[in-house]
Amino acid sequence: MSDLDRVLAAVDADLDASLERLFAFLRIPSISTDKTFAPECRRAGQWLADDLATLGFTAQLAETPGHPVVLARSSGGAPRRVMFYGHYDVQPVDPLELWETPPFEPAILTNPEGVKRIVARGSADDKGQVMTFVEACRAFLKVTGKLPVEVTIAVEGEEESGSLNMPAFVAANKDALSADLALVCDTGMWDAETPGITVSLRGLMHEEFVVRCADRDLHSGYYGGAARNPLHVISKIIADVHGADGRVTIPGFYDNVRETPDEVKAQWAELGLTPENFLGPIGLSIPAGEQDRMLIELISSRPTFEVNGMWGGYIGAGSKTVIPAIATAKISCRLVADQDPAHVREVVRTFIRARIPADCSVEFLGGEGSRAVAVAHDSPDLKKAAKALADEWGRAPVTIGEGGSIPIVGHFKKTLGQDTLLVGFSLDDDRIHSPNEKYDLASFHKGIRSWVRILAALA
Amino acid sequence: MSDLDRVLAAVDADLDASLERLFAFLRIPSISTDKTFAPECRRAGQWLADDLATLGFTAQLAETPGHPVVLARSSGGAPRRVMFYGHYDVQPVDPLELWETPPFEPAILTNPEGVKRIVARGSADDKGQVMTFVEACRAFLKVTGKLPVEVTIAVEGEEESGSLNMPAFVAANKDALSADLALVCDTGMWDAETPGITVSLRGLMHEEFVVRCADRDLHSGYYGGAARNPLHVISKIIADVHGADGRVTIPGFYDNVRETPDEVKAQWAELGLTPENFLGPIGLSIPAGEQDRMLIELISSRPTFEVNGMWGGYIGAGSKTVIPAIATAKISCRLVADQDPAHVREVVRTFIRARIPADCSVEFLGGEGSRAVAVAHDSPDLKKAAKALADEWGRAPVTIGEGGSIPIVGHFKKTLGQDTLLVGFSLDDDRIHSPNEKYDLASFHKGIRSWVRILAALA
Repeated sequence: MSDLDRVLAAVDADLDASLERLFAFLRIPSISTDKTFAPECRRAGQWLADDLATLGFTAQLAETPGHPVVLARSSGGAPRRVMFYGHYDVQPVDPLELWETPPFEPAILTNPEGVKRIVARGSADDKGQVMTFVEACRAFLKVTGKLPVEVTIAVEGEEESGSLNMPAFVAANKDALSADLALVCDTGMWDAETPGITVSLRGLMHEEFVVRCADRDLHSGYYGGAARNPLHVISKIIADVHGADGRVTIPGFYDNVRETPDEVKAQWAELGLTPENFLGPIGLSIPAGEQDRMLIELISSRPTFEVNGMWGGYIGAGSKTVIPAIATAKISCRLVADQDPAHVREVVRTFIRARIPADCSVEFLGGEGSRAVAVAHDSPDLKKAAKALADEWGRAPVTIGEGGSIPIVGHFKKTLGQDTLLVGFSLDDDRIHSPNEKYDLASFHKGIRSWVRILAALA
Repeated sequence: MSDLDRVLAAVDADLDASLERLFAFLRIPSISTDKTFAPECRRAGQWLADDLATLGFTAQLAETPGHPVVLARSSGGAPRRVMFYGHYDVQPVDPLELWETPPFEPAILTNPEGVKRIVARGSADDKGQVMTFVEACRAFLKVTGKLPVEVTIAVEGEEESGSLNMPAFVAANKDALSADLALVCDTGMWDAETPGITVSLRGLMHEEFVVRCADRDLHSGYYGGAARNPLHVISKIIADVHGADGRVTIPGFYDNVRETPDEVKAQWAELGLTPENFLGPIGLSIPAGEQDRMLIELISSRPTFEVNGMWGGYIGAGSKTVIPAIATAKISCRLVADQDPAHVREVVRTFIRARIPADCSVEFLGGEGSRAVAVAHDSPDLKKAAKALADEWGRAPVTIGEGGSIPIVGHFKKTLGQDTLLVGFSLDDDRIHSPNEKYDLASFHKGIRSWVRILAALA
């Protein structure tokens, strides 16, 4: 029996204990976007640092102006080093009433098709994925006493709030983070049977803005018909953003968006992503967005403008005949190719300002943005990882253009000079950011086994 | 000293006690639109019934399918009878953080100009106004032992939630409510020095609708650009409602809207209502709504469409890259002349349905509506009341076309055959339905005195 086989067997034998550890991690409500949960974020980081210390890593909670980063390093003398990145923070859980089990009480539930799933906030994004890598390291150390490559682990606590402090942290910790290759486990498989390696990521630009009209809430009987209603103003702004053809109408929005090469489009067309199989499972059938694009382009190679939240006026039970003083929207844009987040923010703000009546005002509360990222899809390390994944899953991985954003990956290249290998095991139906987030037990189990194979292959 | 003068003197002497009673009434948080407060609504009604019983009225809490109606009758043998209508329920108080004093802890505050104001939710709408009438009755009974006209009092608890049960209550209690004239104290003065008699009221149509797209909240990275966003759909609906000229574009919305007679428009033009003096005090300067209408038309004789509340997606602190499953709006239309609320509801629903994508859905949750009301502005009783008000305030009252709605007034005419005299003492700056609602101490004090004079005049 080879070392690799013995390590894989140890993974299988230790699965129940691996799940116990994951559940302990999942029970900590480390919601990074809500300041109330700051102590829980720190607690989640500390839990992971403590766990890594038991593996013999030198592990610490490294401070930032926000939530700390778990920073851990092995030192066994292997000639190559990889730097694994993930995040211990999770999305908010509302609307809480839609959860079938409490979000921070992880459970293994079996769906009607007999598939076992780990249900909890963070199960797929990203605690479950982080632990696939940690458990792979644990199995190697248990069976062989060492790792095939040295490992640095950097797990941050602000990915869900835009990784605002991570670029400075990477720059300030170049030596500690320096490695031959970065590994990220925060992406998905192509489908439940087919592994994926992600080679491009969309960027992100967040913005929140508040439209103010009258200096107080007004009675709609006295003022209705004469006083400007900020809910009307904000609705008009949002309605104006998309044309009837689904394109974003904001002047300059598409600056620097590159056209996907025809050969890539041809490959994508062959993948057969249809409205039925992509939108059907979520109860939709008609793609929104640009009418002249393939669905796969809309979700991977085209920029987007989405309202993530909007509110104003009376939102309680019953009715209230009020004209509110303010209305607020949270929006975000997914960016591609060479779009500059600062430029996109500016054209968006200009577009909004142009639609504010002269006696009203707008205030912008937005944070930073991140550029899209593309990684080489033919590097030797990627080929090794692809072979390892094919060995585990019995199918060659698909190279994926990922619609989501992982802001820090661009900084690994720019600041550390490191390429990144993006391998993850989540599925489209994992309800990431939604109630009842889950991670298939198979994603977790075979994810650990996949990392065992990849670490061996990278040696 | 005449009886009238002695009663007026008693009002002045008893003012502190009158305020104490009002404050006790104001301390009860009788918010009718929120079921949580149902016991408080009943408690407010009981408080008033008990107070009226001490005056010698036969008083009871009459049940309805919703909150009970305070029903009280005097029986002193006077040849005429009036039926006074008001409401003991109040609007919700949110946003609570904008209140400078707690909404249910009434206080008398002096503004920078030295004007004393009663600050509390319900001070102007409508508990303070109801108590001007009750205190006038109390003063008559105290000084003369009887009322100049017999009085029936019907004070309901659901005016702020649309008076849904009141039409059936009026129909079922025709005998008890029958009188020579209905009196309502739920309207305003022309300005702080000039009393007003309201001769028309806009109607109201409430609606709440929910737009559903995907069957769950979605990650904007995975689905952004492909999945329909209900906040975009609802924004487009609201944006489409008003044309660039401020007119409502909904087909059929203006059916049966009558043009205001030229002579009335000429009178209105002379009143000199300008954007500066109407919108200036609330921090605005440019009238919204129909561009080709006088401001006074917009707020009194033209129908409106306003969004009173709208929400969807993530509305907590920080950001969340979600595409929500649902978005909701509460809207209301002020109606005029012969507009039929049921017809307006139907054309609004048709307009909305036409803008729902084929794979999405809309659900309507709206309640009932009320027609606009016009009362005769040259009846003998109105002339008597006008003289009484002129005596009290030193200025003749202005006849007002009121922008707000009091749904039940139409039923007094239709079901009971009674004309209504609408006299009230609130001011445009009373912040009705808003934080820091107030009622000037002068409104309360001279309001009581005004009812003393009106009751004497109607005898």
